[in-house]
Amino acid sequence: MSVVVDFSLGATVQARLAELARLTDEPGCLTRLYLSPAHRQAVALVKDWMTAAGMSVALDAAATLIGRYAGRQASHQTLLLGSHIDTVRSAGRYDGALGVVAAIEAVAALHRAGERLPFALEVLAFGDEEGVRFPTTLTGSRALAGGFDPAALDGRDGDGISLAEALRAFGGLPDRVTALARPPETVLGYVELHIEQGPVLEAADLPLGIVTAINGATRYRATIVGAPGHAGTVPMGLRRDALAAAAEMVLAVERIARGAKDLVATVGRIEASPGAVNVIPGMVRFTIDLRAPDDSTRASACAALSAELQALAALRDVELALEQTHDAPAAPCDPRLIGQLEAAVVRAGLRPLRLPSGAGHDGMALARLCPIGMLFVRCRRGLSHHPDEFAATADIDRAVQVLLDFLRRFQPVRAL
Amino acid sequence: MSVVVDFSLGATVQARLAELARLTDEPGCLTRLYLSPAHRQAVALVKDWMTAAGMSVALDAAATLIGRYAGRQASHQTLLLGSHIDTVRSAGRYDGALGVVAAIEAVAALHRAGERLPFALEVLAFGDEEGVRFPTTLTGSRALAGGFDPAALDGRDGDGISLAEALRAFGGLPDRVTALARPPETVLGYVELHIEQGPVLEAADLPLGIVTAINGATRYRATIVGAPGHAGTVPMGLRRDALAAAAEMVLAVERIARGAKDLVATVGRIEASPGAVNVIPGMVRFTIDLRAPDDSTRASACAALSAELQALAALRDVELALEQTHDAPAAPCDPRLIGQLEAAVVRAGLRPLRLPSGAGHDGMALARLCPIGMLFVRCRRGLSHHPDEFAATADIDRAVQVLLDFLRRFQPVRAL
Repeated sequence: MSVVVDFSLGATVQARLAELARLTDEPGCLTRLYLSPAHRQAVALVKDWMTAAGMSVALDAAATLIGRYAGRQASHQTLLLGSHIDTVRSAGRYDGALGVVAAIEAVAALHRAGERLPFALEVLAFGDEEGVRFPTTLTGSRALAGGFDPAALDGRDGDGISLAEALRAFGGLPDRVTALARPPETVLGYVELHIEQGPVLEAADLPLGIVTAINGATRYRATIVGAPGHAGTVPMGLRRDALAAAAEMVLAVERIARGAKDLVATVGRIEASPGAVNVIPGMVRFTIDLRAPDDSTRASACAALSAELQALAALRDVELALEQTHDAPAAPCDPRLIGQLEAAVVRAGLRPLRLPSGAGHDGMALARLCPIGMLFVRCRRGLSHHPDEFAATADIDRAVQVLLDFLRRFQPVRAL
Repeated sequence: MSVVVDFSLGATVQARLAELARLTDEPGCLTRLYLSPAHRQAVALVKDWMTAAGMSVALDAAATLIGRYAGRQASHQTLLLGSHIDTVRSAGRYDGALGVVAAIEAVAALHRAGERLPFALEVLAFGDEEGVRFPTTLTGSRALAGGFDPAALDGRDGDGISLAEALRAFGGLPDRVTALARPPETVLGYVELHIEQGPVLEAADLPLGIVTAINGATRYRATIVGAPGHAGTVPMGLRRDALAAAAEMVLAVERIARGAKDLVATVGRIEASPGAVNVIPGMVRFTIDLRAPDDSTRASACAALSAELQALAALRDVELALEQTHDAPAAPCDPRLIGQLEAAVVRAGLRPLRLPSGAGHDGMALARLCPIGMLFVRCRRGLSHHPDEFAATADIDRAVQVLLDFLRRFQPVRAL
């Protein structure tokens, strides 16, 4: 006697992700850039799946593919689902695509059962989340949320093609992108399913997690100027070693990040000059990337960071220049969407785990239009933006089931 | 009424250093490589100065220019003085040349006074201390000490010219280099005057210092392997950040060096991979350079270093590979030479300060032949191997006076 486990929703999604992964601009790996030939092929394939799931399908002016599954009444109010179908270079097949394909599969399940919900559903397949090709990013989601800056249309890719030209060639309408902005009263929310791209769920042995916020981020470029010197002839007491100072700062960055829940900070680049085995470094440059789901936590951490690093520099008599190179606010998920997603996770028999999203998503742009919510799916070793990116069929199945259950019981955050 | 201060010995040396500095292989800066056209010009100029100081002059088989000032008796025993007349690229004019020119000036003072000492003096102008042109270094001093490896003759410069070919073209005798080895019983010692190339004398406000040893040195290449990850999605508690581990190790290197007198240790190079602002470093490579005047101090420090760094790696669950890339023993100065140099410094009215030499010198090679001693001259901001290298005329004058006084009162370390 054998136990038959039915992961049919997950198996369908997994098979479709494999099919999508063959659509690439670079043979031998998966690279699917916004408005590229592979993007065009992906739009055609996803359109077929949407149509088969009972949706009416259209490509909008910003080349977002939109499948609409009408509600029980001819309501104007719509719950948005989806994610993106563009990728980084040499990507994995789950980042973005999973959220689109899983949402289609949830709608397909409703369609197969002949179910209509008291509101419309739209599955959005955005084309520009990774921001690899043009200087801008989140074109499709910003357009819907009324946050698209038309100046971005003049931005050019590495071949000198402008976003406007590429959009036009693809069948989009550059002049109509700003007109895509949705009236907020027509949108109930945006719910995205995405691989975690981190190791938290794997470490917690859980297939799913409920996102609390898309982290805000601050970046700095730090430059320390000490005094170079001969590694043999300058006694320790007479040194102003820029790298020893930097080492204390790297550890201070780590210590500050450990001091607050869900705060992360990273020194990813470091460079010591002149960089010879027998010369005391006279100058060191390094970067700091600091993220938190809560902007006040991030602001406090940045203030503490600046003060501690300057104090460390003063103690060692070196100069520190700390230049902020990036600052983006957090996009908190809506507490009521968090609650409803969490309830669906609990109904699925799973321990609900809340976690922030350290990576960016289309929800950052859509947060200005409507409440947002995200469901994370465990991925192997937290790996993403890599060909070895992987999510298990059983986990994906769980995710589609939870999404479907969430949709069936959805209580609009805004009045119907 | 004005006070006339006579720095005539120092002024002569300073003027001659300026003259020597014009002899360069690269216009616009001072670069004088072993067996180059500028080296040939320098040999001719120094030969003239030696001759004028009453010395008989010869170029030996390894292209060391040797001026001999006979003693009172036709003794075979000789006290060696000198330094080197080759330079690094874009060098200063004091490193090496000062020791040669100052020794000639001391002998010239004896010659002018008609003084003969109870032993012979030789001023050696070595041609290969910097080791810039050929794969080897210290050719001249190693030859005299019986430590020359004939295999070095096959080493080639960047143009493919072998040391043997270059020596022959210069007037040297490659086949006779090993025969230059002096019988130890004929040599009383080797005394070298050199700029400090470090900041200790300047910090102590002293023109001269007595060298205790030429430091031994150990170098390592360290490689830390942790786990790369997304700077946003990996919580602090799940990281195996190779750069945070490296930062602790850089500080441990510094702490160990501070723990023992005259020990210095430096991390001069560091590289984090993949090296992106938004990626946790998965791998870091760095170098360690550790020097001490005493080999047992250095050995203890190396053992402590290895143990501490491995312990730090274990605490952070990262892998550390520590590869020794260089190991050279210290060359201690002879205590009796140190004592006699110190006595001369004291007679000059100066506070005697003993310090190790962190940089290498010909004495390292000659230590296997005879007792060695070194006198350091203060240089501005500890700067060396740089066009701005500078020693004051007053300090140089002091150095020549002390050397002369030392020579006049020299008590042979070996029996006459």
